[in-house]
Amino acid sequence: MTISIQTSFAFECDRPTDCMLQFEAANIPEQQILDCHSDLTDAAHCARIPAQEEIGERILVRAQGRFEVQHSARVQVERQLAKLGTLEHLQPHELPAAPVKYLFDSRYCLADKFQSIVESEFAGTSGGARIAAIHDWIAHKFTYAPGASTPETTALDSFVERRGICRDFAHILITMARASAIPARYVACFAPDVTPQDFHAVAEVFLNDPATPGGGTWQLVDATGMATPDEIVKIGVGRDAADVSFLTSFGMVKLCEKTVQVTRD
Amino acid sequence: MTISIQTSFAFECDRPTDCMLQFEAANIPEQQILDCHSDLTDAAHCARIPAQEEIGERILVRAQGRFEVQHSARVQVERQLAKLGTLEHLQPHELPAAPVKYLFDSRYCLADKFQSIVESEFAGTSGGARIAAIHDWIAHKFTYAPGASTPETTALDSFVERRGICRDFAHILITMARASAIPARYVACFAPDVTPQDFHAVAEVFLNDPATPGGGTWQLVDATGMATPDEIVKIGVGRDAADVSFLTSFGMVKLCEKTVQVTRD
Amino acid sequence: MTISIQTSFAFECDRPTDCMLQFEAANIPEQQILDCHSDLTDAAHCARIPAQEEIGERILVRAQGRFEVQHSARVQVERQLAKLGTLEHLQPHELPAAPVKYLFDSRYCLADKFQSIVESEFAGTSGGARIAAIHDWIAHKFTYAPGASTPETTALDSFVERRGICRDFAHILITMARASAIPARYVACFAPDVTPQDFHAVAEVFLNDPATPGGGTWQLVDATGMATPDEIVKIGVGRDAADVSFLTSFGMVKLCEKTVQVTRD
Amino acid sequence: MTISIQTSFAFECDRPTDCMLQFEAANIPEQQILDCHSDLTDAAHCARIPAQEEIGERILVRAQGRFEVQHSARVQVERQLAKLGTLEHLQPHELPAAPVKYLFDSRYCLADKFQSIVESEFAGTSGGARIAAIHDWIAHKFTYAPGASTPETTALDSFVERRGICRDFAHILITMARASAIPARYVACFAPDVTPQDFHAVAEVFLNDPATPGGGTWQLVDATGMATPDEIVKIGVGRDAADVSFLTSFGMVKLCEKTVQVTRD
Repeated sequence: MTISIQTSFAFECDRPTDCMLQFEAANIPEQQILDCHSDLTDAAHCARIPAQEEIGERILVRAQGRFEVQHSARVQVERQLAKLGTLEHLQPHELPAAPVKYLFDSRYCLADKFQSIVESEFAGTSGGARIAAIHDWIAHKFTYAPGASTPETTALDSFVERRGICRDFAHILITMARASAIPARYVACFAPDVTPQDFHAVAEVFLNDPATPGGGTWQLVDATGMATPDEIVKIGVGRDAADVSFLTSFGMVKLCEKTVQVTRD
Repeated sequence: MTISIQTSFAFECDRPTDCMLQFEAANIPEQQILDCHSDLTDAAHCARIPAQEEIGERILVRAQGRFEVQHSARVQVERQLAKLGTLEHLQPHELPAAPVKYLFDSRYCLADKFQSIVESEFAGTSGGARIAAIHDWIAHKFTYAPGASTPETTALDSFVERRGICRDFAHILITMARASAIPARYVACFAPDVTPQDFHAVAEVFLNDPATPGGGTWQLVDATGMATPDEIVKIGVGRDAADVSFLTSFGMVKLCEKTVQVTRD
Repeated sequence: MTISIQTSFAFECDRPTDCMLQFEAANIPEQQILDCHSDLTDAAHCARIPAQEEIGERILVRAQGRFEVQHSARVQVERQLAKLGTLEHLQPHELPAAPVKYLFDSRYCLADKFQSIVESEFAGTSGGARIAAIHDWIAHKFTYAPGASTPETTALDSFVERRGICRDFAHILITMARASAIPARYVACFAPDVTPQDFHAVAEVFLNDPATPGGGTWQLVDATGMATPDEIVKIGVGRDAADVSFLTSFGMVKLCEKTVQVTRD
Repeated sequence: MTISIQTSFAFECDRPTDCMLQFEAANIPEQQILDCHSDLTDAAHCARIPAQEEIGERILVRAQGRFEVQHSARVQVERQLAKLGTLEHLQPHELPAAPVKYLFDSRYCLADKFQSIVESEFAGTSGGARIAAIHDWIAHKFTYAPGASTPETTALDSFVERRGICRDFAHILITMARASAIPARYVACFAPDVTPQDFHAVAEVFLNDPATPGGGTWQLVDATGMATPDEIVKIGVGRDAADVSFLTSFGMVKLCEKTVQVTRD
């Protein structure tokens, strides 16, 4: 599947402000970058560094005044897909070291509090079947509602409010996965069919694919149901949205505009 | 400096429960393990994996009934020490990739909210001098008060309550460092002179030591003032206390007892 | 039904500390005080004032050092009982002024967030039937677990954690009632069969009893199922636990002991 | 001082939704209503009830579709003013019953956590002088910043973020007053010079005026410094903003527009 991406955004800051940007299609084996172009306002300082898990890059700039970003890319998605229901749970003692950190509580995903509830709501399921059950439970109970949540909204809030955007849906799924002892992380991404068009976010869970030798693989799951794994273009990953915002600043910045267009070729 | 450690703890769980333990002196260049012994109740499953940043190990067990842990170690601390006040701030665009994740909000350290306050309280300071100012501000404003906080207490709570234990002190310092664009992480550790004797926690900040070539080093800072960097034996590191608890469980466990003794040889 | 109560508690404070106590069986028409005795340590200052809604009294003292309280009472409960299922919802525009304030968010009961969830979980029910459905839902989903919650635990936390004590159970029911546009308040009380024996807490909801002329009555509901309305002796009422603690202090106090014994005569 | 008020707002709801409105200049002795007119969209149900403390009225309506409100009033403010610095603290045991409930924690004002900090920051002050010190501390430390806070922002958040709108300023002052054992409540009001023009919010504290016989009076304090007590027209009072919103709904409503104009005659 080949996906075309066009995005642009601009922000303003009154005085020199350090910003971290992460908005580009990541150059990783599971998605081949056919074409890619990024255009940024000139900045006093600018550096590129590998982002978390070496998936994608962060651009660190010192911005002042108006700062504009344009990015376009064509990406061929080639990831190996697995049927969620067939994936097996890895007991904590069977996990390799790397995914273990994705079991712990993070800024928006206070998983520890959810241990009782996942145990009772999803009793009798484990591994991929547990994740599928969580996915269906969210699909059944939640309403996609732009504007209903804020950047402060945690999975705890969303769990009660029963509405939110992609980020909130991802946080709930990640939180319930971790509470089930399944490592889960947040994936900032592009995908077609996201309505309204915007940066998107999904979850990724670490499970054992009996068809693949070795100790487990990361599998994409979109709690909103808007994107399928074969069409998702990853930007970056992290514990939760706090780690992979397209714009993080040390000081006040004002977002002026943002457009995202994602289409199938 | 040679430090001797003796610790034991026990917990109980009614049914088979996956637990992650991290309680041993870490085997890393800055501290030489002269002698080390750990004794655990036999468990159905048991695995050892490297912990975060490959500092220390996690022991993953499936426990049932009463589970006991005994650990003793003799450790020679040999880390390079720097004078905090001489350390220089690295602008985000000067940072290597690895410490960048320690700039983001985590479970207990919501740094983003603290940007205005650090800017006004500690105006005119940067780098090591900023951290020293934060350290002194905490020493001046906070009271060490076992029992005044809970496992839910965040840096936001502590900032208002002005009291807590080592973990709360570390969270406040980490939060204010990150709000100052200085990477900061949480260090679970042993140290003599901790009163009452217990597992201890301090912060570590990433700054440039002009005396050391290369792009920055991690430096220990104890916000409680009870331990000095030449006597601290690291157990592990993480974003905050959520990452390096001595005991994390997937299911209810009851801590029965815990003793810690740390002495200078 | 005649209920006998014996309670005592003691606390300590290092320096003169203003404290508000509310621990006595309230002298109100629905429960006749046959016998009542309270004994308090002498204090520099001591005053009695009517508590909220003139239900019970608060004792305001300036305590220093050790402060002891003993209270015994015999109370004949004579309140009018209604069958919960027969009670009718009063639309907001049908409510008298007094109960309206019990519709708003309070310290532990953030009802606004629960509007979607009560609408979907309890669709098709209203009035007393809605409260009965909420009561049964809590009984089915929650575990009574002393020690699992803290004085900071809100209904939002409890809703996810699915366990707590009487106070948490009451908070959840109050929150869900308010989210259903039913005024609900917190009742501190004594009741037999509370296990382990302690001060107890239940909810009270404002509904229309078709059998009683006029615009609505308050009806007791115990979300824990441990007490029945004909055996509950009220101490006081408020928005939530923040309003009717047996001990509120302006400064640090240390609770030393507390015993409660409630029996049927 | 005579104040002229013009306000209008409109909101929409897809299906019949119970709403509580409170937006009119209150008819109370301290402010004489010279002229008053309110115009509302016809609603299926509509009732007026006295609001909290019988200050102002709430209008309870069942709205559907677009609902519009227009209100104009001319009000002569005649309240007795006192010099804040001369007002005396009433010890809890000297308080009458009515203001005591304004000592407790509420939705946005978790005062209990602030006891240590007010004791250390404002040591040596009490009564009106304490409130004046808190007022000046807020004026010095906080920035008035529309858009920087959300309806979820508590005094705990604001205390760290050091910015917000009138509601956040009032919450901080109320919280710190309660933590100082001074009853404090939230006042929704109109005032000229509020920039940008909007509904305004200030605090009211209960202190003893040595010039007035009897046990204490409520005194207005505007933490933002934009309004003076002789020009404030009260709409209503409550524990905090949760109690006196101009619009509270049981179900989703969308605010479409809002204009407020307040001038001196």
